[in-house]
Amino acid sequence: VRPKGCRLVALLTDFGLKDPFVGMMKAVILSRTRSPVSFLDLTHEVPAQDIRCGAFFLRAAAPYLPAGTLVVAVVDPGVGSARRILYARSGQMRFLAPDNGLLSWVGEDRPFEQVRWVRNRKLALPCASATFHGRDWFAPVAAACLSGLPSSDFGPGVRSIVRLPTPRFERFPGMVRGEVISWDRFGNCWTSLRLKDLPPGGAVFFKGRSLGPLRHHYAQVASGRPLAVAGSFGFVELSVRDGDFAGRLKAGRGDPVLYKFQPS
Amino acid sequence: VRPKGCRLVALLTDFGLKDPFVGMMKAVILSRTRSPVSFLDLTHEVPAQDIRCGAFFLRAAAPYLPAGTLVVAVVDPGVGSARRILYARSGQMRFLAPDNGLLSWVGEDRPFEQVRWVRNRKLALPCASATFHGRDWFAPVAAACLSGLPSSDFGPGVRSIVRLPTPRFERFPGMVRGEVISWDRFGNCWTSLRLKDLPPGGAVFFKGRSLGPLRHHYAQVASGRPLAVAGSFGFVELSVRDGDFAGRLKAGRGDPVLYKFQPS
Amino acid sequence: VRPKGCRLVALLTDFGLKDPFVGMMKAVILSRTRSPVSFLDLTHEVPAQDIRCGAFFLRAAAPYLPAGTLVVAVVDPGVGSARRILYARSGQMRFLAPDNGLLSWVGEDRPFEQVRWVRNRKLALPCASATFHGRDWFAPVAAACLSGLPSSDFGPGVRSIVRLPTPRFERFPGMVRGEVISWDRFGNCWTSLRLKDLPPGGAVFFKGRSLGPLRHHYAQVASGRPLAVAGSFGFVELSVRDGDFAGRLKAGRGDPVLYKFQPS
Repeated sequence: VRPKGCRLVALLTDFGLKDPFVGMMKAVILSRTRSPVSFLDLTHEVPAQDIRCGAFFLRAAAPYLPAGTLVVAVVDPGVGSARRILYARSGQMRFLAPDNGLLSWVGEDRPFEQVRWVRNRKLALPCASATFHGRDWFAPVAAACLSGLPSSDFGPGVRSIVRLPTPRFERFPGMVRGEVISWDRFGNCWTSLRLKDLPPGGAVFFKGRSLGPLRHHYAQVASGRPLAVAGSFGFVELSVRDGDFAGRLKAGRGDPVLYKFQPS
Repeated sequence: VRPKGCRLVALLTDFGLKDPFVGMMKAVILSRTRSPVSFLDLTHEVPAQDIRCGAFFLRAAAPYLPAGTLVVAVVDPGVGSARRILYARSGQMRFLAPDNGLLSWVGEDRPFEQVRWVRNRKLALPCASATFHGRDWFAPVAAACLSGLPSSDFGPGVRSIVRLPTPRFERFPGMVRGEVISWDRFGNCWTSLRLKDLPPGGAVFFKGRSLGPLRHHYAQVASGRPLAVAGSFGFVELSVRDGDFAGRLKAGRGDPVLYKFQPS
Repeated sequence: VRPKGCRLVALLTDFGLKDPFVGMMKAVILSRTRSPVSFLDLTHEVPAQDIRCGAFFLRAAAPYLPAGTLVVAVVDPGVGSARRILYARSGQMRFLAPDNGLLSWVGEDRPFEQVRWVRNRKLALPCASATFHGRDWFAPVAAACLSGLPSSDFGPGVRSIVRLPTPRFERFPGMVRGEVISWDRFGNCWTSLRLKDLPPGGAVFFKGRSLGPLRHHYAQVASGRPLAVAGSFGFVELSVRDGDFAGRLKAGRGDPVLYKFQPS
């Protein structure tokens, strides 16, 4: 439970940290709220306009956020076009994001109880730009959320939102086929192979090469060797111990990853 | 209005995030203040020693900061030399910065009511280094500001401060000539063409090439096409939709940007 | 003195800022504490798995942290293996870190009064992963620290911890030999030559080249010239004015740095 009167805003964007974009968003939120606000930066280095990666990060991080968190997610290649801004609520969590698929996967695990199209112009900054909705729309709407404005004032209810295709997870006799979703700065690849949906005792294959059984930590193989790990986000991850899997095995988004096992 | 007893320090530096410099500055501020302090990082990735870019960011961000913010800006190639440290006040905003031009443009929009030369050695850390004034001078002086020390204790009043040349904005019949100031991590270029000073209906030219009329969002042109956008900082910006303008058109600081229009 | 009821957690990791790892750690800490928590990011860009650099940063930053700070340091190539997690206390400072040498040098200046092996599984997240102890062990243990859990509940006392070799500092008649430890993003090199252990009046040599006497600021030499500076971390630093020492002089970790002086 968050301390009373202290609200948490979790931010996820592709704005980067070189420019003052994130700082300006936070400045607007702080300017328009009376009680203290804390910020939790999930990341601002989502690859530019990579909605898919942003959606994956949101799904990974959401289960760990404190109850009552307001998540503001802005990876928004369609900024200024007709794409909608969404307000979505799921239990004690609230989300603001463009309607472009960014909320696809966080919504898989926790269905939204309410979704609204944020289009009340009175909530935006006066003279809102068409290119920086993070500052001119998302930030003041976030401040309105924090200040207790009823969500019915944001705009009309929404029946269906844009959803990305679910990452590949295909079952065959003795095999599951998933795919590479993205990778971190060490070159470790995230895949769509969710651990809890895999039968035990199998082995992972990538580009015709066996990576062996699922390991629990890197030290189970020699330095420089590739391996498949039961990853911390709840999915199979591909790594090279003390090395860069994505670089060395030339892994790309969507590349198939196979999990083969003895059919029961 | 900021909540009582909670003070906001906005930081802008070229210290980067790889080293613990920014953390050490914040540690000193927190060590020397009693009531809670919040930090707002505008950016710490100003290109190394690029006073011009820092000054541009400060002007862009300042109007969005909450009243009462203390801005600490350190882009300081002359650290340790005879350059002065400035305290400047404008309404409810206070600034600490080296006297090297960094406050040039933020002061254009909001003239300073008071400027002082911070040279009271009792305010610095004992054994202050000559190379890290962010930690040894700016941070403890910021803490003194937050703790309510009268500004007259900082040092003597200052009549005139170092100012950068105003970025080019030259009017001709049917044309305004500005220049490229800097660019963001997507390659979008900031120019000195302030939107409110341009007559309507014109078109933007760069290196002899027309970028067409001012657009309101990227989606108004096809993917891969260059365009000129009415930017979110209040200036013309140059972009390539889904691409990198600075890289592809080899834009450099100071390159001329023309806005041509039908003289009335 | 920190305000009552507001606790400070200083973080140092090699997790980087591209991925939501740091955000997830903070989310877990916030989820499990009742009174307000503030975070101080020392850096999350320690070079991947560079324990030596992390240890150097910790030593440099620790003296500036407010009394009562909890330091959580995670540079942890052995995550998931048998390496221990340590809780260490020194005066009002507390530390959580893997037992891999990361606390070697911070402990030189301030000996630990108590060290424990954190192995109480009840403190970890249920279903803790083997690859992300930052989130699954360090964060909930940090929350337990902040909530006042007695340290005896963490695990058994520890007699000796893993220590890195002390960086070279060898005295000869008329000479001290140190080494390059690491460098910052400007290319300035940190060395093991501690200022307070050097006799006055000497000169610094690197790769057979004299860098002249110790300077107090960069402006004491012409632009483009290499120099040795009495650095802000309390050690000799090697720089090129307006340039990149590490790049231009091809400095590597462990390269000898000599300080020659007139023997008394």
